[in-house]
Amino acid sequence: MSARGTSISSFSSVATELIALARWCHERGWTPATSGNFSARLGDETLAITASGRPKGALVLSDIVVVNTDGRLTGPSAGRPSAETALHCQLYRRSGDVGAVAHTHSRAATVLSRRCAQEGYVTLAGYEVAKALSGVTTHDDTVLLPVFVNTQDIGKLAEDVEAFMSAHPPVHGYLIAGHGLYTWGADIVDTSRHIEALEFMLDCALLEGSIS
Amino acid sequence: MSARGTSISSFSSVATELIALARWCHERGWTPATSGNFSARLGDETLAITASGRPKGALVLSDIVVVNTDGRLTGPSAGRPSAETALHCQLYRRSGDVGAVAHTHSRAATVLSRRCAQEGYVTLAGYEVAKALSGVTTHDDTVLLPVFVNTQDIGKLAEDVEAFMSAHPPVHGYLIAGHGLYTWGADIVDTSRHIEALEFMLDCALLEGSIS
Amino acid sequence: MSARGTSISSFSSVATELIALARWCHERGWTPATSGNFSARLGDETLAITASGRPKGALVLSDIVVVNTDGRLTGPSAGRPSAETALHCQLYRRSGDVGAVAHTHSRAATVLSRRCAQEGYVTLAGYEVAKALSGVTTHDDTVLLPVFVNTQDIGKLAEDVEAFMSAHPPVHGYLIAGHGLYTWGADIVDTSRHIEALEFMLDCALLEGSIS
Amino acid sequence: MSARGTSISSFSSVATELIALARWCHERGWTPATSGNFSARLGDETLAITASGRPKGALVLSDIVVVNTDGRLTGPSAGRPSAETALHCQLYRRSGDVGAVAHTHSRAATVLSRRCAQEGYVTLAGYEVAKALSGVTTHDDTVLLPVFVNTQDIGKLAEDVEAFMSAHPPVHGYLIAGHGLYTWGADIVDTSRHIEALEFMLDCALLEGSIS
Repeated sequence: MSARGTSISSFSSVATELIALARWCHERGWTPATSGNFSARLGDETLAITASGRPKGALVLSDIVVVNTDGRLTGPSAGRPSAETALHCQLYRRSGDVGAVAHTHSRAATVLSRRCAQEGYVTLAGYEVAKALSGVTTHDDTVLLPVFVNTQDIGKLAEDVEAFMSAHPPVHGYLIAGHGLYTWGADIVDTSRHIEALEFMLDCALLEGSIS
Repeated sequence: MSARGTSISSFSSVATELIALARWCHERGWTPATSGNFSARLGDETLAITASGRPKGALVLSDIVVVNTDGRLTGPSAGRPSAETALHCQLYRRSGDVGAVAHTHSRAATVLSRRCAQEGYVTLAGYEVAKALSGVTTHDDTVLLPVFVNTQDIGKLAEDVEAFMSAHPPVHGYLIAGHGLYTWGADIVDTSRHIEALEFMLDCALLEGSIS
Repeated sequence: MSARGTSISSFSSVATELIALARWCHERGWTPATSGNFSARLGDETLAITASGRPKGALVLSDIVVVNTDGRLTGPSAGRPSAETALHCQLYRRSGDVGAVAHTHSRAATVLSRRCAQEGYVTLAGYEVAKALSGVTTHDDTVLLPVFVNTQDIGKLAEDVEAFMSAHPPVHGYLIAGHGLYTWGADIVDTSRHIEALEFMLDCALLEGSIS
Repeated sequence: MSARGTSISSFSSVATELIALARWCHERGWTPATSGNFSARLGDETLAITASGRPKGALVLSDIVVVNTDGRLTGPSAGRPSAETALHCQLYRRSGDVGAVAHTHSRAATVLSRRCAQEGYVTLAGYEVAKALSGVTTHDDTVLLPVFVNTQDIGKLAEDVEAFMSAHPPVHGYLIAGHGLYTWGADIVDTSRHIEALEFMLDCALLEGSIS
């Protein structure tokens, strides 16, 4: 996906991919009741993102809107951008390597993020599937997901995430307590794989009961 | 959905939506073995409701019947209205804002309602997805679902629900022990979203084991 | 389904229904790895039954064979009748009211039947969905499923079932330890509903952990 | 499947079967995030195997490559063979009776293999479905799956498996800790059945909590 020379045709292609990703997540129970949101970079300073309040299993092209990396609509639009757009923008602004961002809202992520909210992180260690995360080459790598306290002040939450990421080594995603998972990648394909790997490990951790 | 000027075409459209909702619930395992029932308001004093004893994954138009808000058929019909019609009517009579009612019968609702029958309610607190319920704007809102003791005397059960609702703040749904969930909304779309959000939170509560 | 005047066309119709039932069970994970078997009465002394060793999610007409109620093929056949045919025959011989028999092999039935093998029965009490069983009119009825010790001697197992049924009040099904559920009904539709209701209650009992 | 006279048409047919098997496993959640790999014998010393890093739910013909039983590509190829090709080759070289090999990566296999890594094996006893494994004729047979410590040194892992298999009675599969299941059979149909039976028993063992 080129970050330059964005045109209407690239919007249409990116939006179609986002719709397919959202449907795939919804079929797995990861975006109940209009929850979840998905975006992809269109250019240096623009992104396509799911509109607020739409059912993720049945999106259409008009449910994808275009915003600048500061979260403002770039033109007239049928829908408002997701209420959590600021969390997507924080990641796109932070690194030009981020080409897509996904927020899923699974049972495992909800339960484990609540359980580990006080501790502040979920640790996933010794899973072969961790190698599906970009840059991970061995199951010996430990995947640490920070857990942020939930709030309706999304601007504040974006600042908390930015502060954490500036002070710590790179992470592959984070959790918001009682709310779900954020993850990202170089493009939509990488991001899908990251969702699938992280949700798998969260399911295993829940089955193991090893995270107290 | 207009509550006025109901015509044959609006029945057909509403019935088609109810059939789709019932199939969607059945695919998720929420209406096993002909359990579950679904209705939507056609006019001030009429509603369309699923007939008794039909498999919810394979309904056809003749499986949807029309009754008054006192539960009597408005005309000749191929089927009897659901045995639990009185529970639907109680809600439509209580408030003109109720446009649709659903009763699902999931594993989580069955197990948790049995577990909490003596206590009399299930409390769902701190879940972001609670915001999918109409009128809820923050995860800080606690969702309380009263649990009624099961009985085959549906008239008595409807009176118990009416008495509870008259004496307490508004609720988004209720449980019947060993029997499942009732929820409602302004229309079928809202009601579907309420089912999905409540069933998600019940699943999480079951996974958490936090409800003793 | 008439038990008289069986013809080639009725075989074809019954076999098609059995194939659909088997596929439906396989999609739910209830007949893994060629397990499970299904039959329906064709006449007073004949039945159609799934052949041995076929994958239940992909049966074709030649995977359904016709046997007498003593388990012998009534004519040339592409397949051998299920190894557990004697368990089906015991039920058809015992009562002319039995029009179809199903054996599913779910995770819940496997785990609970092992857990309760020594006690000798699984008790399902207070479930509204019990009303889906023919003859049950209230959730107050307790559903008792006897559990038989597993054996490869199917003739012996059929005798054990016959002896139990002669000495006890009627049951709606039984379990074989580590092996699964047998249930039956007046026809294939009733039997499907019984499977769905019993598997639902077994899932709930497993989630409740109430069966020690 | 003939092991002699391999031609382009037999490759195409075998590859199509492998693609279907991989999709079937992915739909069940057994190959998340490009994990899992599948192969089938084409001739005495050649096999078709899934390429590295492809999503198992959406393989195409060019995602299947041909290697010798020492793991080297037999000709020009669009993809690299699976990183775990050596584990497949060990089995094909060990016995001419092995016609297909599958590696799944399910939640149950991941969790149980971690739990039993120190003990060194998972024991599955008293399950009727064990009879779906070639050569098993009674539920009284105990199925023992050795558990190998995970490593990124696949050559070393293949040697460990070979050493184990030379020193012990035949097994129907093995686990790698935090990584999943390997199983095999005379052909793809047998291997599919072995996957389904073993994954079923692992699910039951996890539900039973009987493996400490």
